Amino acid sequence: MDLVAFLNGLGTLTFAATGALVGVRKRFDLIGVMILASVTAVGGGSIRDVVVGFLPPAALRDDALLWGVALTGVATFYLHRYLGRLERTLYALDTLGLALFAALGAERGLTYGLGVWGVVFAGTVSGVGGGVLRDVLSGEVPGILYRAGDLYASAAAAGALVVYLLYGLDPGLSLVAGALTTMLLRFGSRWWGLRLPVPRG
Amino acid sequence: MDLVAFLNGLGTLTFAATGALVGVRKRFDLIGVMILASVTAVGGGSIRDVVVGFLPPAALRDDALLWGVALTGVATFYLHRYLGRLERTLYALDTLGLALFAALGAERGLTYGLGVWGVVFAGTVSGVGGGVLRDVLSGEVPGILYRAGDLYASAAAAGALVVYLLYGLDPGLSLVAGALTTMLLRFGSRWWGLRLPVPRG
Amino acid sequence: MDLVAFLNGLGTLTFAATGALVGVRKRFDLIGVMILASVTAVGGGSIRDVVVGFLPPAALRDDALLWGVALTGVATFYLHRYLGRLERTLYALDTLGLALFAALGAERGLTYGLGVWGVVFAGTVSGVGGGVLRDVLSGEVPGILYRAGDLYASAAAAGALVVYLLYGLDPGLSLVAGALTTMLLRFGSRWWGLRLPVPRG
Repeated sequence: MDLVAFLNGLGTLTFAATGALVGVRKRFDLIGVMILASVTAVGGGSIRDVVVGFLPPAALRDDALLWGVALTGVATFYLHRYLGRLERTLYALDTLGLALFAALGAERGLTYGLGVWGVVFAGTVSGVGGGVLRDVLSGEVPGILYRAGDLYASAAAAGALVVYLLYGLDPGLSLVAGALTTMLLRFGSRWWGLRLPVPRG
Repeated sequence: MDLVAFLNGLGTLTFAATGALVGVRKRFDLIGVMILASVTAVGGGSIRDVVVGFLPPAALRDDALLWGVALTGVATFYLHRYLGRLERTLYALDTLGLALFAALGAERGLTYGLGVWGVVFAGTVSGVGGGVLRDVLSGEVPGILYRAGDLYASAAAAGALVVYLLYGLDPGLSLVAGALTTMLLRFGSRWWGLRLPVPRG
Repeated sequence: MDLVAFLNGLGTLTFAATGALVGVRKRFDLIGVMILASVTAVGGGSIRDVVVGFLPPAALRDDALLWGVALTGVATFYLHRYLGRLERTLYALDTLGLALFAALGAERGLTYGLGVWGVVFAGTVSGVGGGVLRDVLSGEVPGILYRAGDLYASAAAAGALVVYLLYGLDPGLSLVAGALTTMLLRFGSRWWGLRLPVPRG
């Protein structure tokens, strides 16, 4: 599980950095940037844990992780010009975080006995919940609701569904397959122009 | 309890349809419309269950209901032009859902030992919480805060209060009386022009 | 503990009044003003209690307090012109409420075994969570994110940190020191122009 913990930390800190960057672009002050970093990093998993009843949420008990989030927030606040140049790296790491959180979130849902839609919810909210809180707090409509050309919540949901379907076969394999599904769909929307339908008429 | 389950399903699917319609009108994509449908349908009851500590929330455990919500979301996405014509039917069904959720939410609050205001909160948030989440996610100020001429949250609160007052007498009767109170107040605001006061000066 | 209960009530009713005043200024109707009053008054502590798993939240079980919140909401609705003149008093009482909620919220976090960041979160969200919900529901970006010259969330966080650091020494002393820290920082931002940094470049 060391690799999972490492990837989980990497994904969380990436989310913290992207959340902090949004705060910087909105000209929020230092505490505002820190709040956005924290909410983006640990908000999704915390909503999932509140909903399944795993309290206090895992992230709130993990002080090493929260130190990382806080330091990432401060570093992004002061060094945002350098970080802003790493857009492609952040995009890749953000997709990795999304994929991992969706797969692990789905597993948490299975552990708590949820059915297919409960598991899909647990995986999806783990992946996208932090970003939704970040957008709502920033006064924006959450991007996951309308960015038809950037598969994000749908990629997380598909990954969680794969975990649900394959978990009985082999838990470890199902997590890998779920995460790969999410990554493939997200990168696919950029590489091959996969798009979701929008309403007609 | 078969009738209650049937009405609960009908109310939930109606909320899913009205949530999906908001997403369609905002030109959200398919996943955005599905998210708004789900949040509107099961958000209120889920907030109530999280707050009283009934975890995971009832709706998340009910896969049949969630299949219905998902199918309603997809159907509304593709058939919204036909659904848009049923405005009066949707209004009536939405009022039915509001009344039922408020009454059942109040009962849940009583079961968990809450006092009068806790019960009123549990009933009201069950009825209006999903719509509030839908409005906030869509970037709108929740309609329940300012639509003085369309009694909605106040109708739910009044219904929950009636359940609180009559429950000791007869639980079944109190639920019916509570739901009727909510319906009467909501329809009354349309039929007889009942209005809430707005601030002066 | 009588003094703590008294101060807690005073802080809660002050938050109810400031929340209701926002609703009045937005021209919300009576139920909208009541909802904003309630959410502002008990939202922060309730988020904290949900997150640590103290369910139902303390405020929802305290009917006397909720009667006070409801009456404060109604009184503010009808008498807002008189209340609006008490701006300096409300500012002072609001700061007292913030300081007290942050200190008591930090204590709750310690009781539930959280580490330093968990305790800082529990204290901060107790102090500012209600105001954040109020702002989001009103369609505003939460003031705590960008008001660099009015230390608020940062003052609450610093107070919670002081409680965390001194609690082992003497619980009562740590609460007083934490609350004083919050008050000093907030008043300090007004008196001496303490400011948080904002992003450069």
